[in-house]
Amino acid sequence: MLERIGREVSLAIIGYGCRGQTQMEVLMSMPDVKIVAVCDRYADRMEKAAARVQEKQGHLPFATQNAHEAIACKEAEGVVIMTGWETHIPLAIHALKCGKYPALEVGGACALQECWDLVNASEQAAIPVMLLENCCYNREEMALLRMIRKGVFGEVVHCEGAYSHDLRDEIGLGDVNRHYRQKHFLSRNGELYPTHELGPIAKYLRLNRGNRMVSLVAMASKSAGLRAWLQENRPDTPLKDAQVNQGDVVTTLIKCANGETICLTHDCTTPRPYSRGGVIRGTKGLWQEEGRFIYVEGDDRNPDHKPHHWESDAPFMRDYEHPLWKEYQEFGMRGGHGGMDYLVLRAYVESLQNGTPAPIDVYDTAAWMAVTALSEESIAKGSVPVAVPDFTRGQWMYQRPEDGDIFALDEGTHLE
Amino acid sequence: MLERIGREVSLAIIGYGCRGQTQMEVLMSMPDVKIVAVCDRYADRMEKAAARVQEKQGHLPFATQNAHEAIACKEAEGVVIMTGWETHIPLAIHALKCGKYPALEVGGACALQECWDLVNASEQAAIPVMLLENCCYNREEMALLRMIRKGVFGEVVHCEGAYSHDLRDEIGLGDVNRHYRQKHFLSRNGELYPTHELGPIAKYLRLNRGNRMVSLVAMASKSAGLRAWLQENRPDTPLKDAQVNQGDVVTTLIKCANGETICLTHDCTTPRPYSRGGVIRGTKGLWQEEGRFIYVEGDDRNPDHKPHHWESDAPFMRDYEHPLWKEYQEFGMRGGHGGMDYLVLRAYVESLQNGTPAPIDVYDTAAWMAVTALSEESIAKGSVPVAVPDFTRGQWMYQRPEDGDIFALDEGTHLE
Repeated sequence: MLERIGREVSLAIIGYGCRGQTQMEVLMSMPDVKIVAVCDRYADRMEKAAARVQEKQGHLPFATQNAHEAIACKEAEGVVIMTGWETHIPLAIHALKCGKYPALEVGGACALQECWDLVNASEQAAIPVMLLENCCYNREEMALLRMIRKGVFGEVVHCEGAYSHDLRDEIGLGDVNRHYRQKHFLSRNGELYPTHELGPIAKYLRLNRGNRMVSLVAMASKSAGLRAWLQENRPDTPLKDAQVNQGDVVTTLIKCANGETICLTHDCTTPRPYSRGGVIRGTKGLWQEEGRFIYVEGDDRNPDHKPHHWESDAPFMRDYEHPLWKEYQEFGMRGGHGGMDYLVLRAYVESLQNGTPAPIDVYDTAAWMAVTALSEESIAKGSVPVAVPDFTRGQWMYQRPEDGDIFALDEGTHLE
Repeated sequence: MLERIGREVSLAIIGYGCRGQTQMEVLMSMPDVKIVAVCDRYADRMEKAAARVQEKQGHLPFATQNAHEAIACKEAEGVVIMTGWETHIPLAIHALKCGKYPALEVGGACALQECWDLVNASEQAAIPVMLLENCCYNREEMALLRMIRKGVFGEVVHCEGAYSHDLRDEIGLGDVNRHYRQKHFLSRNGELYPTHELGPIAKYLRLNRGNRMVSLVAMASKSAGLRAWLQENRPDTPLKDAQVNQGDVVTTLIKCANGETICLTHDCTTPRPYSRGGVIRGTKGLWQEEGRFIYVEGDDRNPDHKPHHWESDAPFMRDYEHPLWKEYQEFGMRGGHGGMDYLVLRAYVESLQNGTPAPIDVYDTAAWMAVTALSEESIAKGSVPVAVPDFTRGQWMYQRPEDGDIFALDEGTHLE
């Protein structure tokens, strides 16, 4: 399937910061994608984007510093939004109102209402929305999805995930480097970036497809890491005494309709190795990302298997490799983040080409992004439980008929 | 100090199940301890206990199936309570009223009020209470305490711990083996057993000595693991269809007065390796028990140190070995659970001999055990935050003058 070249689709690129730059390259590596408009709020980035399209695709795209102008570009049927977090949903809604199919880079919502607004805009326009959650397409997460569907862990009762990423320098230099993260960390306090870990877990637990998140509570630790960094690294600026609102470690507990719990950790302001902190717990065994450990009762595919001891997950990852990833390795992996960026963008492009539903659709997008706003509400109220709205308006009770017809996010795909 | 033999102390042993049997052996290995009374609700265990004292100490102790009779035994000045969880506090209160110094094996409280009752009884009798939390005396936890006091992790912002122990067979056969755990798992739903991990964390964070727990929220996953085990292993008994209330994974978030967060996990009903799930997070680095990983920014004592990569904690454990453990190894480690059982019992015996405060005192005992009752309340109310009472009545704001005068639970001990 990865070999297939479809009809040409024309895209507008909104946001040409770090992420926009790498993702536009991936999109331009696809022979059936044409970049017709580029946009960045900064003139230099806008010009750089236009020049790069000219160089790579041989035509000069429409270039603007105004996102609404880029969205309005007549040729563009899809809009790829890679701006600061707080503008993802407003721009996606605007795209829908202009009849364009928006893809959003990841981030959390600032207000619960905007998640509803996104759902309503998509339903009213009858146009899909896709969240570009690349981690859903990562090799390990897709193998784990297969393990779960094949019953390796028995009945899954609990999952964990994290966005553990030491971003002190990126945040601390945000004003210098024009990075939106700084303002969010100085101002907000919550699970700011849930989707890298929550996305795959949502697929594991069939959220919005027979299950859903019903409530969450969040708790934030004190904020000490970023301030210490600023005092050491920005001593000659007002930032050294800045008020930092974001707690160093924010923990969020989510309860699902079918009884599973999810524990998310957000921490970006203390030194540590990168991790998405994955844990999957079931009645027959468990997997843990840190250390790449697995234990499955009675499964002796590892020669060193013995009761109640960790073992390497490598033989399981080998045996449960997802068919898409087998194909992808033959096809040739490409794009950033170990190859997953290409897959998620390709899924969007195919959905756009074929008029098929988005594999990470507007209900997923709304629910996953809502976790950020809801976690802020919970923390603001002293870690009270808050309800997670049912953005599907009851449709979560049903597995959707289209599941399995689209790109490789579940067992039932045409790949197997 | 471990070489020192003090005045002889006379103890009553209440409860001669698995734990009572091993702990009484440890106590009888001390030349200055005399067992004067033994008690178990089952006649066979009571007789076995008495015979064992006769064999080892050359005298027949007072033996009874009635705990109050054992406590009333005139000779006994201390009472070691190793019964089912639900009787620890009532028996300790009774001991205090009889003028005896009680030591409690670990467990959680069934009701918040009984924690207050314990504090009040201790204050009224002017007699200490000690919780026998052996993990506070474990080698790794004591080395970590030193690392924290020496600033290895910078400012600590978050800790985690777990009681991850596959006890399905013990729970599932509890009716056959007369084990109290079964009733608790069938009936209750909460953080049933918090102290093994919370105890050391409380010492790290100086809880009740300049800091305290102010609130908590708990969330329970569905209950699937024990039922699956019962259906497979007890198919011919009514237990196969028993109502199981305890969630497989219960997660509890605790907020401390000084802004730290603590995340506790309780899981005993799914297959997995044993772990106390320790995590310590600070502004300079972190430690993780699973995999025995550490990362301390800029600390290159490990030759393979590089930014943002895990490394083995072994060189840190070596360099920060607690003085008590250095002495203990020369003295000769003994007793169960890697030697920590001896140390915690010895700390109790010395406190009793010398009339010194308990290193894990009645305020610690009440606060740590209260987490169980509070977690049940939080879960019962839909994961609402509940306040953790200040059992010290304001004294938590002060470091206590006796800290450092007693047995090796902090840096300021006479051992250094």
